[in-house]
Amino acid sequence: MMITDLGSGEGFSAGRRLVLVPHIAYLGPPGTFTEQATRILTEGFDADLLPYETVPQALAALRAGEVLAAGVPVESSVEGSVPATLDALISGDPLIAVAEATVPVQFDVLVRAGVTADQVRTVASHPHAIAQVRGWLAANLPDADVRMASSTAAAAKEVADGELDAAIAAPLAIELFDGLSALARGIADTPDAITRFLLLRRPGALPEPTGADRTSIAAVITDEVGTLTELMLELSLRGINLSRIESRPTKDRLGEYRFFLDFDGHVADARIGDALSGLRRRCSEVRFLGSYPKADHSPANVRPSASEQAFQASARWLARLREGGVA
Amino acid sequence: MMITDLGSGEGFSAGRRLVLVPHIAYLGPPGTFTEQATRILTEGFDADLLPYETVPQALAALRAGEVLAAGVPVESSVEGSVPATLDALISGDPLIAVAEATVPVQFDVLVRAGVTADQVRTVASHPHAIAQVRGWLAANLPDADVRMASSTAAAAKEVADGELDAAIAAPLAIELFDGLSALARGIADTPDAITRFLLLRRPGALPEPTGADRTSIAAVITDEVGTLTELMLELSLRGINLSRIESRPTKDRLGEYRFFLDFDGHVADARIGDALSGLRRRCSEVRFLGSYPKADHSPANVRPSASEQAFQASARWLARLREGGVA
Repeated sequence: MMITDLGSGEGFSAGRRLVLVPHIAYLGPPGTFTEQATRILTEGFDADLLPYETVPQALAALRAGEVLAAGVPVESSVEGSVPATLDALISGDPLIAVAEATVPVQFDVLVRAGVTADQVRTVASHPHAIAQVRGWLAANLPDADVRMASSTAAAAKEVADGELDAAIAAPLAIELFDGLSALARGIADTPDAITRFLLLRRPGALPEPTGADRTSIAAVITDEVGTLTELMLELSLRGINLSRIESRPTKDRLGEYRFFLDFDGHVADARIGDALSGLRRRCSEVRFLGSYPKADHSPANVRPSASEQAFQASARWLARLREGGVA
Repeated sequence: MMITDLGSGEGFSAGRRLVLVPHIAYLGPPGTFTEQATRILTEGFDADLLPYETVPQALAALRAGEVLAAGVPVESSVEGSVPATLDALISGDPLIAVAEATVPVQFDVLVRAGVTADQVRTVASHPHAIAQVRGWLAANLPDADVRMASSTAAAAKEVADGELDAAIAAPLAIELFDGLSALARGIADTPDAITRFLLLRRPGALPEPTGADRTSIAAVITDEVGTLTELMLELSLRGINLSRIESRPTKDRLGEYRFFLDFDGHVADARIGDALSGLRRRCSEVRFLGSYPKADHSPANVRPSASEQAFQASARWLARLREGGVA
């Protein structure tokens, strides 16, 4: 993440950096995967990270200009999409994603130093984390009383405070409170689970295209047979690879659906711009949610007929035709 | 829900009903929306409802033949799909949905009788429920300490036991424990939120087509530009209305996606059978998840070219051609 991706036009400069460090919101509390992801997303950038209790609160602070950017979870390979983020993105003033990070969802079992597995009578975590380590708990702490906490970090705090024996928490949580040690590491039942995070900011200059970008939009269509097919055709006719699709009924009107789409490419690319224009003509609403470098840096596979050169050549050809020239 | 929809071929009959009441699993604990939905799904059917701690456990009991059917949440208008249910449906032996119910997600604030809002210092619920009443809590119990519970019913129990002052719970929970009264009713921030539930059973006789049915499938495709468009075309060319789509990466292979699709129609309908055959030819895997009457009984809007008569006429026409006849 380059400083220029975040800092443009936000009223501070290198010279004022020491007196005016920008604030970046994230879904708190500290010590969770979202803090870890937001650190990755803002690496090399001098900023104070501010935890917010909910995604809507973090995005409200961003919309109000109280923070420069916000790090939020958007999708987990185990839990699916994060509805709070999707809903907060499409209500209120537009925001755009400028960077993406994926974080492996790994859980450690944190105890007070010296506590052994035999001594663990109570273990707590956020319900989503509990759901992802049930197999390990059944095999390793079958008799422990499993309790729910508001976050993985809150569970770690209760362990540090002596209120619980063990917490299932993100690896980062061990640094938060004194006296914690890891009874076990990497205990997730699905070891390769990842969560995807986005760094959001108010609309402004977009990240430069890198050739390995993703574009996210939310499009509203009326529920008619074939409408979604036509949207898909707008993408596939231009060789655009879709990486995620999810429908959610809009709360406004019956039979109206909102589709969250992620696809390869940058809005600056000719094929993406052409497809987005087509979607705009077909949908009652298209909200642009950003074009940003993919976390895995895998380049878009662009077929020759959808390349920049092909689009430029066809535009020149059409212009010549319209001028009465010979194509 | 008719008794015949559930009872066929399961080794009990009306005469043996009193000695062999079938068991039906549901995602527990008792007193939650899933129990309420499972009661609706099995209305008029003499069965014992058995709560299970997780969806995978409930479906394991169903697959093992320990229960006749299982009631599980599949999608919420606020929280999105229920990944635990989708994942449990596609791993292990096939199961099919035979009925659908939607339940309005309404929350009550339960306290011990006589407790007033001023006296509420602690309030608890499942994190998903907390997320859906944040606005009400901020306006009405701004100073209460908000705690997490493993379920809305567990929170109600803690109130009944005197460990907490208030619980955000399903209306049904008030009947579970003695001495509870409702401090407020219907406090959800999104008043028209609903959750959709399915009654699952092992494959066998399907529910009869009603003209207002839904079919659910999970289809696996390799991530190539246009593949999803082709799937959509198989549906839209046959006038099939899609009501839900969600992609989830398969955990098996990179670039492989599984799509959960819900659409109008019954597998017994000609247009649906035709489309499913087309999907089967294109996808590396298609799991049929059932055809069942829609909870809202809204009839499928079938265009003339996709009607049963049209399919029969075209089949007769083709047969005549192949026999050397005159079309």
